[in-house]
Amino acid sequence: MILKSKDVLGLKDMTAEEIGYILETAKTMKYILASKNKKTPHLQGKSIITLFYENSTRTRLSFELASKYMSASAANISASGSSVAKGESLIDTGKTIDMMGADVIVIRHSMSGAPHLLAQNVNASVINAGDGMNEHPTQALLDMFTILEKKGTLKNLKIAIIGDIYHSRVARSNIWGLVKMGAEVSVAGPATLMPPGIENLGIRVYSTIQEALIDADVVMGLRIQLERQKKALFPTVREYARFFGLDDKRLKFAKEDALVMHPGPVNRGVELSSKVVDCDQSVINEQVTNGVAVRMALLYLLTRRGSGENLN
Amino acid sequence: MILKSKDVLGLKDMTAEEIGYILETAKTMKYILASKNKKTPHLQGKSIITLFYENSTRTRLSFELASKYMSASAANISASGSSVAKGESLIDTGKTIDMMGADVIVIRHSMSGAPHLLAQNVNASVINAGDGMNEHPTQALLDMFTILEKKGTLKNLKIAIIGDIYHSRVARSNIWGLVKMGAEVSVAGPATLMPPGIENLGIRVYSTIQEALIDADVVMGLRIQLERQKKALFPTVREYARFFGLDDKRLKFAKEDALVMHPGPVNRGVELSSKVVDCDQSVINEQVTNGVAVRMALLYLLTRRGSGENLN
Amino acid sequence: MILKSKDVLGLKDMTAEEIGYILETAKTMKYILASKNKKTPHLQGKSIITLFYENSTRTRLSFELASKYMSASAANISASGSSVAKGESLIDTGKTIDMMGADVIVIRHSMSGAPHLLAQNVNASVINAGDGMNEHPTQALLDMFTILEKKGTLKNLKIAIIGDIYHSRVARSNIWGLVKMGAEVSVAGPATLMPPGIENLGIRVYSTIQEALIDADVVMGLRIQLERQKKALFPTVREYARFFGLDDKRLKFAKEDALVMHPGPVNRGVELSSKVVDCDQSVINEQVTNGVAVRMALLYLLTRRGSGENLN
Repeated sequence: MILKSKDVLGLKDMTAEEIGYILETAKTMKYILASKNKKTPHLQGKSIITLFYENSTRTRLSFELASKYMSASAANISASGSSVAKGESLIDTGKTIDMMGADVIVIRHSMSGAPHLLAQNVNASVINAGDGMNEHPTQALLDMFTILEKKGTLKNLKIAIIGDIYHSRVARSNIWGLVKMGAEVSVAGPATLMPPGIENLGIRVYSTIQEALIDADVVMGLRIQLERQKKALFPTVREYARFFGLDDKRLKFAKEDALVMHPGPVNRGVELSSKVVDCDQSVINEQVTNGVAVRMALLYLLTRRGSGENLN
Repeated sequence: MILKSKDVLGLKDMTAEEIGYILETAKTMKYILASKNKKTPHLQGKSIITLFYENSTRTRLSFELASKYMSASAANISASGSSVAKGESLIDTGKTIDMMGADVIVIRHSMSGAPHLLAQNVNASVINAGDGMNEHPTQALLDMFTILEKKGTLKNLKIAIIGDIYHSRVARSNIWGLVKMGAEVSVAGPATLMPPGIENLGIRVYSTIQEALIDADVVMGLRIQLERQKKALFPTVREYARFFGLDDKRLKFAKEDALVMHPGPVNRGVELSSKVVDCDQSVINEQVTNGVAVRMALLYLLTRRGSGENLN
Repeated sequence: MILKSKDVLGLKDMTAEEIGYILETAKTMKYILASKNKKTPHLQGKSIITLFYENSTRTRLSFELASKYMSASAANISASGSSVAKGESLIDTGKTIDMMGADVIVIRHSMSGAPHLLAQNVNASVINAGDGMNEHPTQALLDMFTILEKKGTLKNLKIAIIGDIYHSRVARSNIWGLVKMGAEVSVAGPATLMPPGIENLGIRVYSTIQEALIDADVVMGLRIQLERQKKALFPTVREYARFFGLDDKRLKFAKEDALVMHPGPVNRGVELSSKVVDCDQSVINEQVTNGVAVRMALLYLLTRRGSGENLN
């Protein structure tokens, strides 16, 4: 089994089989990651370039380390200090990187669809590391991997996603992926931050956090991205925390063994109370490790396309 | 055969034999680059540092990947965020890098002659990746490699270089190199951007693009570097495009199979029309790949000096 | 013998035996560094992350190259452009890096104690690459290595440290380390830049450079960190150079074969005259090489903890 596409642009266009296969591959990668010697030769002779038009430490570093653990030639380009400043177009930049021998280009961009545009114009595989308000598929994959690892299945699990759904590419990718994998997804957040028509994606929409949390197996907080929100519509951070912040009292609405998740970095006291971040149910730190494993799996699968080789 | 100097500072001081040897070595490197596994052990145990006082993505990345493909320890220093901000002199910075075990320092600097100053003060080999309005030898070498690959020879080929000759280190290095290799070079550009005495370098100088293009085997556009030009003298971008922009009509003055080249990134609609950038005669994308191959060759040759080892 | 702690936070808390062991290990590393092929497999499969909240080229690059020479997966994070900009706390950032599989985190921070806080919250080993006005242990270790290499011992050597003692983490670490190793340390500097009670550390305090220099085996200059000083108290740079700058005349107060040292970059004409920087007694350039060797030794020892393996 291999991935259908040369690229990983979003979970909307991926099948449940493909998602399952990626998560399965990530298990092997996590095993490698936990060993004393993290170096593998899987990407030897391959070249992975991160091309970030938005600042990021976590995601960029996660891809960089995933690449290096697997012996790839890895290089980073950030928009500041690059020829982007010289006004070069995304396609021309992408073609340049492509012509330098890149096997995979990992792109983050504030514009939805930028990774798709890039993918159509390069021979390299493209991984979407976040595009505007559209998708962030590797985050959703690591979230699903974490749930699967802890709960054994995604099927029929109740997942509550809380927060600013409107601006969240993490929420969008998780909704696409989780619904495909048979989970029951609920969302809750301020009315002004709920995209119209979201209920058509096969999920339940609530206006209070309590309703969404009832009986949940997993509670996912979303980062408040102040920089992306239109001021006038938004509740203040204080109002947000008061009505949608997850504290230990509210967490009791969920199942006793419900997982607490967050893509990070957490605004402590806003999306989650500090106590909840650090509680036993929280798997936020493990999500970070799983992010590296999932990205290793994707890099492995994309660079193996058509080669007939197999990891195991 | 080895390079005479420990450094690659410019084509002005290089012999035709040395240039030919570098281009020959780059052929092997391009072959490696095109293979499925780009990793070679040629620079294992060697350390390559890029030291860029001017922003650059293309050239910096090209050197970084060339180094990594050949298993070097590679690190980048950019002027912003470096101890340059603490006022350290170029020589002291260079000596520090040298004492950390650098085998090659790749420098870009806005001041002509900076690489020469550095080279005199360090044990490491120095490669000039562009110094002010002086030279950009690795760009000219990749341009020559591209022509040689497509045309089989440089001897007696008619090369037209169009644009802001005055500020262009790419033009200068190409003129030195191409004339040495027996090509017939013509230049054309606005009178205000034509350095006085340039005709003494053994080239023809025209004031219209049409004259320079007649019968040309190769047409090279040069990037308009707005930041380097003195405002008052310069034609506007619009005027430039009108009189010296290369579109498909003008390209007809050249030979039917003339190559279209540009060091990139292209200002589409200024130096070249978008149609010309993407036409069949354009080898702009291949120039990028060849840039990595040429830089691999240089790094290989410089770190092999005096070792008696040979690539083949 | 192994290091007691998982971290290297300062020389205050290290024993003379540990310091001696590190310096002994660094000898082997310097031998490797001087060889034609600097690549060793000692850190294969290990991951080293530099996390710098203050700008630095020298120290950051020194750690990066030390890591790469030993085949580690190395990545750099600088505060600008990182999620630090998103307001993430040091502990949360550290935990994230930790969870990505870091074996060693190298941190520089303007706040004294930041590395200690980090060390308590991560599984990775933490190396302090400079914290506020507290310590810079790797600089002191490389200074001691340099003296030991040149003089054969540290015991009973007279070391004069000249300059802004108050703000200097380099001075503090050197005082802790040198006194432990049996050296006789004197300090001299402007009264306004002398920390009260410093004499209690077992050193001599002088108010003129001449007194401190008499009979010295080693003279260490300290960088004037203009950005760290409170304006009103400080002598002007000109006054500093006049009263505490080391020129060839003043150097005559020290022993004939006294070493001249400086952590770099030197403000020529301020802490040291240009002539002194470049004189035969100056080992400033060798300090840079030794810095890489000492950092290789530390990375080796920290990643070898509990493994029972031995370098020799």
